[in-house]
Amino acid sequence: MSASLPRPRVGVWLIGARGSVATTAVAGCAAMAAGLHPPTGMVTETPPFADSGLPDLASLVFGGHDTTDCPLPKRAEELAADGVLPHGLPAAVAAELAAADAEIRPGGPARGDSRSTEELIAAFTADIQDFVRRGQLARAVVVNVASTEPAADGAALPPSSLYAAAALRAGCGYVNFTPSTGLHHPALAAVAATAGAPYAGRDGKTGQTLLRSVLGPMFAQRALDVRAWSGTNLLGGGDGAALADPAAAAAKNAGKERVLADTLGGSPQGEVHIDDVPALGDWKTAWDHIAFDGFLGTRMVLQTIWQGCDSALAAPLVLDLARLTLRAHESGIRGALSDLGFYFKDPVGQAPSALGEQYAALVRFGQRLRETA
Amino acid sequence: MSASLPRPRVGVWLIGARGSVATTAVAGCAAMAAGLHPPTGMVTETPPFADSGLPDLASLVFGGHDTTDCPLPKRAEELAADGVLPHGLPAAVAAELAAADAEIRPGGPARGDSRSTEELIAAFTADIQDFVRRGQLARAVVVNVASTEPAADGAALPPSSLYAAAALRAGCGYVNFTPSTGLHHPALAAVAATAGAPYAGRDGKTGQTLLRSVLGPMFAQRALDVRAWSGTNLLGGGDGAALADPAAAAAKNAGKERVLADTLGGSPQGEVHIDDVPALGDWKTAWDHIAFDGFLGTRMVLQTIWQGCDSALAAPLVLDLARLTLRAHESGIRGALSDLGFYFKDPVGQAPSALGEQYAALVRFGQRLRETA
Amino acid sequence: MSASLPRPRVGVWLIGARGSVATTAVAGCAAMAAGLHPPTGMVTETPPFADSGLPDLASLVFGGHDTTDCPLPKRAEELAADGVLPHGLPAAVAAELAAADAEIRPGGPARGDSRSTEELIAAFTADIQDFVRRGQLARAVVVNVASTEPAADGAALPPSSLYAAAALRAGCGYVNFTPSTGLHHPALAAVAATAGAPYAGRDGKTGQTLLRSVLGPMFAQRALDVRAWSGTNLLGGGDGAALADPAAAAAKNAGKERVLADTLGGSPQGEVHIDDVPALGDWKTAWDHIAFDGFLGTRMVLQTIWQGCDSALAAPLVLDLARLTLRAHESGIRGALSDLGFYFKDPVGQAPSALGEQYAALVRFGQRLRETA
Amino acid sequence: MSASLPRPRVGVWLIGARGSVATTAVAGCAAMAAGLHPPTGMVTETPPFADSGLPDLASLVFGGHDTTDCPLPKRAEELAADGVLPHGLPAAVAAELAAADAEIRPGGPARGDSRSTEELIAAFTADIQDFVRRGQLARAVVVNVASTEPAADGAALPPSSLYAAAALRAGCGYVNFTPSTGLHHPALAAVAATAGAPYAGRDGKTGQTLLRSVLGPMFAQRALDVRAWSGTNLLGGGDGAALADPAAAAAKNAGKERVLADTLGGSPQGEVHIDDVPALGDWKTAWDHIAFDGFLGTRMVLQTIWQGCDSALAAPLVLDLARLTLRAHESGIRGALSDLGFYFKDPVGQAPSALGEQYAALVRFGQRLRETA
Repeated sequence: MSASLPRPRVGVWLIGARGSVATTAVAGCAAMAAGLHPPTGMVTETPPFADSGLPDLASLVFGGHDTTDCPLPKRAEELAADGVLPHGLPAAVAAELAAADAEIRPGGPARGDSRSTEELIAAFTADIQDFVRRGQLARAVVVNVASTEPAADGAALPPSSLYAAAALRAGCGYVNFTPSTGLHHPALAAVAATAGAPYAGRDGKTGQTLLRSVLGPMFAQRALDVRAWSGTNLLGGGDGAALADPAAAAAKNAGKERVLADTLGGSPQGEVHIDDVPALGDWKTAWDHIAFDGFLGTRMVLQTIWQGCDSALAAPLVLDLARLTLRAHESGIRGALSDLGFYFKDPVGQAPSALGEQYAALVRFGQRLRETA
Repeated sequence: MSASLPRPRVGVWLIGARGSVATTAVAGCAAMAAGLHPPTGMVTETPPFADSGLPDLASLVFGGHDTTDCPLPKRAEELAADGVLPHGLPAAVAAELAAADAEIRPGGPARGDSRSTEELIAAFTADIQDFVRRGQLARAVVVNVASTEPAADGAALPPSSLYAAAALRAGCGYVNFTPSTGLHHPALAAVAATAGAPYAGRDGKTGQTLLRSVLGPMFAQRALDVRAWSGTNLLGGGDGAALADPAAAAAKNAGKERVLADTLGGSPQGEVHIDDVPALGDWKTAWDHIAFDGFLGTRMVLQTIWQGCDSALAAPLVLDLARLTLRAHESGIRGALSDLGFYFKDPVGQAPSALGEQYAALVRFGQRLRETA
Repeated sequence: MSASLPRPRVGVWLIGARGSVATTAVAGCAAMAAGLHPPTGMVTETPPFADSGLPDLASLVFGGHDTTDCPLPKRAEELAADGVLPHGLPAAVAAELAAADAEIRPGGPARGDSRSTEELIAAFTADIQDFVRRGQLARAVVVNVASTEPAADGAALPPSSLYAAAALRAGCGYVNFTPSTGLHHPALAAVAATAGAPYAGRDGKTGQTLLRSVLGPMFAQRALDVRAWSGTNLLGGGDGAALADPAAAAAKNAGKERVLADTLGGSPQGEVHIDDVPALGDWKTAWDHIAFDGFLGTRMVLQTIWQGCDSALAAPLVLDLARLTLRAHESGIRGALSDLGFYFKDPVGQAPSALGEQYAALVRFGQRLRETA
Repeated sequence: MSASLPRPRVGVWLIGARGSVATTAVAGCAAMAAGLHPPTGMVTETPPFADSGLPDLASLVFGGHDTTDCPLPKRAEELAADGVLPHGLPAAVAAELAAADAEIRPGGPARGDSRSTEELIAAFTADIQDFVRRGQLARAVVVNVASTEPAADGAALPPSSLYAAAALRAGCGYVNFTPSTGLHHPALAAVAATAGAPYAGRDGKTGQTLLRSVLGPMFAQRALDVRAWSGTNLLGGGDGAALADPAAAAAKNAGKERVLADTLGGSPQGEVHIDDVPALGDWKTAWDHIAFDGFLGTRMVLQTIWQGCDSALAAPLVLDLARLTLRAHESGIRGALSDLGFYFKDPVGQAPSALGEQYAALVRFGQRLRETA
């Protein structure tokens, strides 16, 4: 790799391309590439990954599927009005937003859509292949950032699995940033096992669960006995509305509880609530109450209150994952990327559950990418 | 080591032997040895340390220095009334409390004490040596759990350093669980460098700083920009009163800030307050407010509220440290035990600052002890 | 009323007489009467009520209905072990606990009970009348402190209404400290309207709702726009288990929301959760998150965390209400005591909803009782 | 008063006219007068004050003193960038900001200013009188919203007192929204006693103390025993820097503690900290920890976390106070306005300390103004 040769352009195909996370990722990538903002929150821009051969932010080309019509520049203005994006940013990166908007294709299935599962996968595959061809892209990665779908039941492939199948069929890497089924469907097991590209997931670890993945190990390492871990999440925006559906919330909560069980070695008492509070917009507040016993059974309590902007927490991780998966693909790595557990509540493959160990694994993965550069 | 041979008795000499931490450690050790309570909070009772050859809890013999007169059984009753010890426990372990009480000697220097520094060290050394001889102990460790003393100024050795010098002179291991000077005095540098026994410290990491040592790395690993980290501690009991002295609080806060600087790679804005609130007794509440910037400068906040009982948090760590240091001593290990950074705000030697890495180092240390068994 | 004449003994008949609240009230009344504890939490022991002619604490005689068998002295020991009652108190008031225990009769209907509604009311009435006659009591008040029953549906009288009907038929005053139906049943409307004794209720305001009744008016008076008010309650004990039943929780939450609607003049977004967390025992933690808009729409947040012991909060109010209702009865006051809104989430009659105004009404009521003394 | 007659224009002279509070008040008044925002936070725009004859928002003319140079339109842009003012508002009310900016005169004394106390008062008086004359104003009120000055010592009049003296000498009403001395100086006692205009103060009750003024009465009315009330305030902006001066913080804290002492009838344990955290800008976080004893000495805790924007909290109160004082002046009311205690930590005259009673007094004051219309 020489500085004098331009890096080839690579694609990031977003499922849910008009959502808050996707809009923030596209706008933020353009802003950082233009030097308007420092790369806060981008792990792949820190020193351990400097020589890993990751694609430049400026070389990323965005497109995707969505079922809604609102143009990206307009979505970006809405996010700026809500304080999610800095004021002035939508105008500053209007060209990049419009370019990505032109690469968004209708998702599905739409209401009344009579196409078969196979027809839908074929259509999505064609959309992705057209994107790669039209953009003269060296390769692309498909990233699911759509609203959480209800937990699947029965044999039918849910939409997230249709997109996942299309990604692999198009020869692309795949990242599932949501708790939706994606590649975790029995009907896709064979496809996943023989994938020619790498894939990662599931369910991005952005706020409350990120905290749990460092606090759980702390209690375990100190031999403190966690009796009950209760949590309430308040959020508005589209995600709040989607998670007001108990089936969708159940999918989300499964990941949160898995992190506790994995790090504590047991399941404490306590529930997790996700409330839709439209007045909060894209801002999320998560309260956790942890009742634990110390020496001689002394009762103690830790409470945490996390107030963050979900899209701003997710977007840099999405860009990180896209870059890492694209680079792994370039390096000839295939199949489950179990070294990316740092990013997920429910990581593919065998991975440690404590954040510190996950970080160490990620840094080693960055070294491995460097060695194959 | 064979199960059929009784382990020799070993000594734990506590500086501040009538304080809350010491009383809780003595009573709790007896309670666990008698099977009255499970070893919650004891890291050395977890599987990774099962074969490290650590002295049994039943083999620990307690004694120490203190400047007050209140007998241990009475102190234990007071702690039970305050909810620090379980009701009924002081009665159940009355014999063990009385036995430890009989081994407590007056500390110093007392008001108007005309003894020289050398005379004081010699007197303390003799007290410790008498304890070892009288009890037919294989060896002993001296653990400082006295109230934090004001930051030292000038060349004079503060009391904590007198005890530390006596410990080494008596051929014992030494652990400084407080922020006081102890062995960290220039005049003791040569003594420490040539010590025939191991030593560890400084400043036990029990609550707010324990949290900071897992949250700091989380922010750093996620490339989030911590702008300000503010904290307030409310506590009563003797520690609250001692720390109401600004000089003592300064010593304590230095350790807290060091953990942040080490894990974040910089010093955020924000102050730490320690308030004496007698109504809280031995219970401590620590509130932390962490203002951080995420992607594109989005402002977010994490707050934590820790409500714990200081003595119950400290006592199992004191027992852990005593056992580890006694076993290291038995194994022929000398000097600074830098692998025990898991327990301290300001560890001796070179040690990682993230709790997860400190835990890994501790587990490796346990393996090393096993190999020399 | 002269100090030289002994006040007549009066009865307090508790529905749920073996529960935590009842046990705490009986034990606490005895402890205060014996001078063992100051009357913290007793509004009727404060100066404004000094001359209202309220029955002395020592003149209160306790009995009641319950469906469980655990003797009061044993329940008191359990509460002391959980930290709800001071250690040593059950032993100190053992005689009074045993005396009350001897006056507890089986409640109902029991499983498989074939008695008709009328037969049950008649049996309960007889129990109460026997209590009054046997104790040579001047009068008695019936106070419902049983676990919340599921919201009633259909025309059948729920148990709480059977007891309420029995109270009035026995010529006693009646207080409903729970959200259960009690006198709020259409079939009892005529009975309530012509009651010869006073009655009060419904749903004691002990913690989270107490707070809401002062915070709601604050926002309204300052013309701040409360957008969302969300809350989570964690509690164990019998009440936690009872409220894990969605129907019971719905009854409880209706009262909480009513206080907000009354004080804010509208219903903000947000939900209320009640989680059963057995590890917390009788201790309750309530977190409230209030998102409000200030000047020019600026978004602000208030959060409150209330950590209290439910029985200790409720018991003094129960004693207050018993005394006030007994005295009102003595003074010839009949029907709904709308001046006692200070104590309730859902007060009978027309009453102000802000705590300050409710307190002023209560003080005036105390003056009125004095004038009729 | 007839709707067909235009109300005369009246003046609001702000001490600290270029500060955050003043800028927010001027911009917000223009925005509401133009119908761009509803009057959230304006108590005087609620129904109880509809017929009190208060001056219309559109009739208020702003000017003032300040020692800095930054033009108001630029200050407003800075506040919008910090999220204190809505984006777009500074542009929408640019004309009104520029008009107010043209009426700002240099405050003092400046560094090296050799003018005597009398010369300074005379100069300030002339500035105010010129403002009234030039604007053909019916009358004016002087409102101190400058940064808190250190607690005065000695006989010299601090700057806030110079402005207060000038206000009365110019025949204007006076409101001290800060904890600074203002009219509370012995040398001004005679002037205040014979003032021909009304005055009010001291120290606006915007956040933590507002909460305390409703929570304190709640504990007192419920006979709960508040053992300790501790608080920490984090804030940036100019106010954070000013209050980092211990002398200024002491002046501020005196007001906070007074509210507790007045409402609780005693002074609980606990301290109040005010930390300057520049990263928070104009946003303030206040944490309060209240340890109280309930029935039988049971220990309980309430914690509150208030996250607000100081300027947005203060500005509508400043406009309220200006309107009420101007109208009182018009009605012939002179001297201390003790009915305005609702707004202040340290109200002039005899006033109740519970917010509910203060609100009732304010509503009665509004009625009194109506009757004199």
